[in-house]
Amino acid sequence: MESDAYIDAPPEMGGRGGTPNPKVPELVARLRSGDTRALARVISLVENDAPETAALLSACFPHTGRALRIGITGSPGAGKSTLVDRLARSFRDTSKSVGVIAVDPTSPFTGGAILGDRIRFQDRQNDPGFYARSMATRGTLGGLAQTTADVALVLEASGKDVLLIETVGVGQDEVEIARLADITLVVLVPGMGDDVQSLKAGVMEIADIFVVNKSDREGADRVEQEIRGLQSLVSSHPERTPPVIRTIATTGEGLPALAAAIDEMETWLLEEKRLEGRRTQHWQRRLDAMLRTELMRRARNNGFDTTVLQFHATRIATGQQDPWQLVAQLTEKVFAPGNST
Amino acid sequence: MESDAYIDAPPEMGGRGGTPNPKVPELVARLRSGDTRALARVISLVENDAPETAALLSACFPHTGRALRIGITGSPGAGKSTLVDRLARSFRDTSKSVGVIAVDPTSPFTGGAILGDRIRFQDRQNDPGFYARSMATRGTLGGLAQTTADVALVLEASGKDVLLIETVGVGQDEVEIARLADITLVVLVPGMGDDVQSLKAGVMEIADIFVVNKSDREGADRVEQEIRGLQSLVSSHPERTPPVIRTIATTGEGLPALAAAIDEMETWLLEEKRLEGRRTQHWQRRLDAMLRTELMRRARNNGFDTTVLQFHATRIATGQQDPWQLVAQLTEKVFAPGNST
Repeated sequence: MESDAYIDAPPEMGGRGGTPNPKVPELVARLRSGDTRALARVISLVENDAPETAALLSACFPHTGRALRIGITGSPGAGKSTLVDRLARSFRDTSKSVGVIAVDPTSPFTGGAILGDRIRFQDRQNDPGFYARSMATRGTLGGLAQTTADVALVLEASGKDVLLIETVGVGQDEVEIARLADITLVVLVPGMGDDVQSLKAGVMEIADIFVVNKSDREGADRVEQEIRGLQSLVSSHPERTPPVIRTIATTGEGLPALAAAIDEMETWLLEEKRLEGRRTQHWQRRLDAMLRTELMRRARNNGFDTTVLQFHATRIATGQQDPWQLVAQLTEKVFAPGNST
Repeated sequence: MESDAYIDAPPEMGGRGGTPNPKVPELVARLRSGDTRALARVISLVENDAPETAALLSACFPHTGRALRIGITGSPGAGKSTLVDRLARSFRDTSKSVGVIAVDPTSPFTGGAILGDRIRFQDRQNDPGFYARSMATRGTLGGLAQTTADVALVLEASGKDVLLIETVGVGQDEVEIARLADITLVVLVPGMGDDVQSLKAGVMEIADIFVVNKSDREGADRVEQEIRGLQSLVSSHPERTPPVIRTIATTGEGLPALAAAIDEMETWLLEEKRLEGRRTQHWQRRLDAMLRTELMRRARNNGFDTTVLQFHATRIATGQQDPWQLVAQLTEKVFAPGNST
């Protein structure tokens, strides 16, 4: 919570009471006009779950829904960063503005990824049609997927035509992040070893386009065969078989084919309200997450604070308190009349 | 929800009303007496979030706290399954009963892991001191980490001396699962490529013992050096440097050294109430998760049902409804006096 002069948001905006924050409309107007410092500021406030977060997102919301969101996921070492760089450049070449969110849940421990990304995007810092942000927040109230969704919304409101959301894909959190996207690319490389099956299976269902990167390496044919083999088992896309595009991101080979596949997928999504369907599914999951977080926030204001939980946790760990009975009692208390906040 | 003849649990046990389930004490007594079918049955009920889940877990709770929980995490292809098999055998050789939970969040798409585990543990099915369970549940109300914790509790109540909880480690969910354990092993292999750093960073903090498996491969020295290098940056264990044990799980080489390292760690944990401290931390995180889930369950009973969320999601996806205003309104409704359930 590192908001400085900002005051609280009104309760109907998810704030903790107090008067409406006069800086919210101003900040959003500034980020809408292309002010990069205001954009960075709003993202930081949202990332840190500042009191005005809901008011800021609510003010951004009417200016969203027009950007194409592309998720890029794959295992470490698949060359996602280079691929995202190339994609960003190819969209910039067609005069589309680009926002990049690079999510790395593993980096808070070393800080390496954030430093790396600062260096990575350094040469683009004077391009007004480009903005990149690294995210590695763990432990926020709503979780990493929800924070990424919020940051994506802010970037969209700033007028970016395309969002590239890059994540290391294996765990459930990463799959959730990939699901923020309208189009999801799953990046694989030849020669990942025998257990590549188990890794692919989890992301198989969310892939709209497979990218076999570093495709000059031995084994590219085999990876493509494995993808096709797993697809025949899963059949999550009965109406559309995701294409497999081979690239060498370091040289740019295959990038025009990938851009064409993205274009084609976008056209397909716009037919028969498919894009609307996907976004509805996205919002259904997100509403559920938002409601959980908001309920917990209110419950905390009703006495579920950290100190109390720690006291109870000690008693549970030493066998003096049954946690299921405790949870029933605590939630009962929150819902009891007179406790409504 | 595939409970057949079972009726609901009382509200104070987290049920949805109705009378107490007379089968709960009977089922728990049977699993306590070594009845494997009752054990399997209770685990299935808990996994499926059956109405009597809270009552079952509450009945299991007094019989827990004595087992040693060992988490085994690492990237796909690190040889975790073979290592877990070896560890299970070595504990069985010292007459300790063993429960194995193999968590693979990626498998629901293909079913491959579950099938593999059935084959894997086939030769042990007549050993009454051994029980193994594969888990691949996604999308349960409380999430995979919470379900795994519940299943671990049931296995403990059945009298197992040692629990081995195996998971593919990269994402946040996997880290949460690893945190269920008293002792966490992080399994690495030589020659994982350049991005091994980012993979290790996320699990660095939770490792009590590092295992370099397949250590006859080229690069074992380098992996150990990298571990030591990262450790000097992270220093999450100021009082104790996690040992690095080299193994070849397929031949059993290094297994005695690993068993000794686990013994030593257990002794260390039992000094100065360190084990109690870890379990308190575990319960604090878990209480938080349990409370969220229970609040959401009650909120659903107060009108947050799936149909309503879908209706709202469509309106949000088409820009007709601001989600932050909606969440504020819906939670307000749940907490309003007269709605307390």
